[in-house]
Amino acid sequence: MRDGAEWILLDAGDVGALIADESWRDVVSAARQDATRKRIATDAAELAAPVLEPRKILCCGLNYLDHIAEAGREVPEYPTLFAKFADTLTAPLADIHIAGSEKVDWEAELAVVIGSRVRGASREEAEAAILGYTVANDVSCRDWQSRTLQWLQGKAWDRTTPIGPVIVTADEISPKEGLDITGEIDGVVMQQSNTRELAFDSADLVAYISQFTELGPGDIVLTGTPGGVGLGMQPQRWLRDGEVLTTRIEGIGELRNTMRIAAGSTEETQ
Amino acid sequence: MRDGAEWILLDAGDVGALIADESWRDVVSAARQDATRKRIATDAAELAAPVLEPRKILCCGLNYLDHIAEAGREVPEYPTLFAKFADTLTAPLADIHIAGSEKVDWEAELAVVIGSRVRGASREEAEAAILGYTVANDVSCRDWQSRTLQWLQGKAWDRTTPIGPVIVTADEISPKEGLDITGEIDGVVMQQSNTRELAFDSADLVAYISQFTELGPGDIVLTGTPGGVGLGMQPQRWLRDGEVLTTRIEGIGELRNTMRIAAGSTEETQ
Repeated sequence: MRDGAEWILLDAGDVGALIADESWRDVVSAARQDATRKRIATDAAELAAPVLEPRKILCCGLNYLDHIAEAGREVPEYPTLFAKFADTLTAPLADIHIAGSEKVDWEAELAVVIGSRVRGASREEAEAAILGYTVANDVSCRDWQSRTLQWLQGKAWDRTTPIGPVIVTADEISPKEGLDITGEIDGVVMQQSNTRELAFDSADLVAYISQFTELGPGDIVLTGTPGGVGLGMQPQRWLRDGEVLTTRIEGIGELRNTMRIAAGSTEETQ
Repeated sequence: MRDGAEWILLDAGDVGALIADESWRDVVSAARQDATRKRIATDAAELAAPVLEPRKILCCGLNYLDHIAEAGREVPEYPTLFAKFADTLTAPLADIHIAGSEKVDWEAELAVVIGSRVRGASREEAEAAILGYTVANDVSCRDWQSRTLQWLQGKAWDRTTPIGPVIVTADEISPKEGLDITGEIDGVVMQQSNTRELAFDSADLVAYISQFTELGPGDIVLTGTPGGVGLGMQPQRWLRDGEVLTTRIEGIGELRNTMRIAAGSTEETQ
């Protein structure tokens, strides 16, 4: 938990485990008052992904009005959804190792962290089930993604989706009112939009997903990416070994990930 | 564990937990010798799904040569893969409750259960990582599946994929050599094929998936369904409330699930 320029260490292994107990807000308040609890200066801390073991990660494609235009598609009636696995995630400052793809692309995204169990929800119930928001980059292997009709195999490479650096709770921030979202490569802005451009906002997505599957504490919904991805450029442009991918959302923070892209099979570098 | 006409109860909560310990074969052998261990006649047992908490479930679409023809598609170069969640699974004799879909379809499938960690595998390594095989039915809500390009939302309804009744280990059975697979509605055969018709067999799929994501003990790969699904019929035909879906694979066993299909939203019946 952040307290000004310090992190207060909690006993929970990850945020998902913490918030699975409904009294978590009391636990956090008590920790803030507890002078004996260990603290680390924020600039000295090595951050892990804030949620390590979500049971479900659902991702929405084609959800920013500008990205929809870039992909040459119509504004959709329903959200396009696919899944990732818990170990697709990686830390906010981790290197991203990929071997076996020649078309690695970036997708800066707002990620929603679920705080309580939600099934068959209205928009209002969905909103109440949102713990908060964080930043993610849905790094995608476009060559694998386009091999078949289903995107999963381009989207679920182990430890390729950085997430973090913090979860800002829903009482502190409003993506619907608008937060700038930016994706950069080596400091050059590639994606620049605002979360108010989302066709389906966070509550829409949680309500929709909850019609067929229950979401629970620590589950994650990635809300889609704005325009400016490599796939949409002319000529197309892919991430290169050594490039630094920075993903930033106003009021939350930024991810900084160095790409480690090798030729050959995944076997050789893992 | 089955021993003739009896189940020998093990201490593991589910098979995934059992096989996560590499000494599981010794545990099973010891249980078989242990006369004091509780036994239940197989016809008196109520069976749960054999794997309750897989970390990953990947499913292959368009994988039987006859189903590919039925769908009017070409034989694919790569397997088409999508995901399910652990709680998409349900027990081999469970009722399947669905409210909110008007096009519920059946897909009899061979399911592969992974026995050990596997990443970047050759076909041979993949084969060695397979614990065994079971039966599944990838019950699909076709109206939701076809709303967008990605199938997940028609494939990941909670407790709609029955799996079981047992896992037959890979030393006892060979899907590659050919096992009859059958799907019936109220005793009428709708799907009838053989696992030797698989375009990508079990080892192919595990090797392919392991190029981008590690599989581990208890993870599941659904290998796709043969022809004879409702989507491919003329006119199309969907499951109706009260119908009994039977899914059978030679040498493994059968699932028997009564469909409980209600109009309206999921909220009303859950």
